[in-house]
Amino acid sequence: MHHAQQILQTHPGAPTVSRELLACLAACHDCEAACLACADACLSEENVKHMVGCIRLDRDCAAVCGTLGAVLARGTASGEPLTALLDACIAACKACADECERHGKMGMEHCRVCAEACRACEQACRQLRATG
Amino acid sequence: MHHAQQILQTHPGAPTVSRELLACLAACHDCEAACLACADACLSEENVKHMVGCIRLDRDCAAVCGTLGAVLARGTASGEPLTALLDACIAACKACADECERHGKMGMEHCRVCAEACRACEQACRQLRATG
Amino acid sequence: MHHAQQILQTHPGAPTVSRELLACLAACHDCEAACLACADACLSEENVKHMVGCIRLDRDCAAVCGTLGAVLARGTASGEPLTALLDACIAACKACADECERHGKMGMEHCRVCAEACRACEQACRQLRATG
Amino acid sequence: MHHAQQILQTHPGAPTVSRELLACLAACHDCEAACLACADACLSEENVKHMVGCIRLDRDCAAVCGTLGAVLARGTASGEPLTALLDACIAACKACADECERHGKMGMEHCRVCAEACRACEQACRQLRATG
Repeated sequence: MHHAQQILQTHPGAPTVSRELLACLAACHDCEAACLACADACLSEENVKHMVGCIRLDRDCAAVCGTLGAVLARGTASGEPLTALLDACIAACKACADECERHGKMGMEHCRVCAEACRACEQACRQLRATG
Repeated sequence: MHHAQQILQTHPGAPTVSRELLACLAACHDCEAACLACADACLSEENVKHMVGCIRLDRDCAAVCGTLGAVLARGTASGEPLTALLDACIAACKACADECERHGKMGMEHCRVCAEACRACEQACRQLRATG
Repeated sequence: MHHAQQILQTHPGAPTVSRELLACLAACHDCEAACLACADACLSEENVKHMVGCIRLDRDCAAVCGTLGAVLARGTASGEPLTALLDACIAACKACADECERHGKMGMEHCRVCAEACRACEQACRQLRATG
Repeated sequence: MHHAQQILQTHPGAPTVSRELLACLAACHDCEAACLACADACLSEENVKHMVGCIRLDRDCAAVCGTLGAVLARGTASGEPLTALLDACIAACKACADECERHGKMGMEHCRVCAEACRACEQACRQLRATG
């Protein structure tokens, strides 16, 4: 994400791009891709049926992370719409992390790693929200 | 993107995730965010009217990069749909880079950096396409 | 959206797809496209500078509506993640409608129509949320 | 999509919004939602394993249709980037329709309907491409 970060730091209308925003932007992109990869890996598991709930949470989490990432990349969102979207992303990441952790404990490596990405994104959202 | 990359490398159904795919995935995310940030920075320029064409190309390039990034994150896309989407991304990145370079030469720093992100993504798409 | 609605109504795992969900799904798609069209129409206005705030709210509203539309199309989302995403969409639609209404009263037809789409989507989200 | 269509028809910078563009925009939204609903319905099937290829094609088709829909909603895209994106959407819709038709013939109603949505979108893309 280094080009995007460089632009945000020289953006004429967004002089206050914070460390928390840049961290949350990167976490959203990582979590979106991790959830999409995890959902697809789940589809390749022997026991797909067991993974259906995880796949659904992965998809929804990826969609919300992708949208928050897009909104943050613009650098100028603020107020109630941003706060509510951060809350939506926190809820999506938490739900997905809870489910992925369960599977991770049963040995599914992609779920264990995905849970880490979700927790990191949840945390980055909380930290950005706290600066608002 | 390190969680996503880790998952793709252990994905049970995508054993052949290549260096080119991982590079293209990262380039898509960087380019998507760079284009969104550039479009928003353009909106903050004194002479917005001058930037309208650039904003439109930024938006379209961001949308195509976002979608290619999502498709690549799944790790299993192939064949004609993938090739055609890579071509669409190459065309979007090229058009946006051409326009941003023009503005970059006139001193617009965000456009100069965005053009770099677009060229890097265009190149990464071509390299992935060549492995197909 | 008639194919999507037909699938949701015969979806083996989503037997309780409500009238409110189908209405909200259609409203999200209409509002997303209306906001994208309005943002682009704003870019074509003589006085673009005056429209910058509206363009930004249009973009963010379109992104959130698009994601909620995708989540609803799956037919099985529920609980806290869905509620929080509905709240985020309500906030985005409200902020965009407020701004577009101001411009609509000054004679901008695309903003007047876009405000209608945002209010309709906000309302559809509230009605779906009330059924939860 | 009636608000979005109304805006496109009064868009100051897009005087030539064609019947084909409006039809393709509506088809993209319908197909995106149909593919997402079909993918989720596939996850609820008794024999999920059998549906994995279909789910993947559904996802990719939905992503490309969503992006083309967003690009078309702006009303001003043109040239090589638009043509290449239309080609990508044609390829995605064709691949998904071929797979869904196979399942539809075996009695899966959601796949049969989804194939219809994909064919309609493929056709709308071809017709818009022919006007370019």
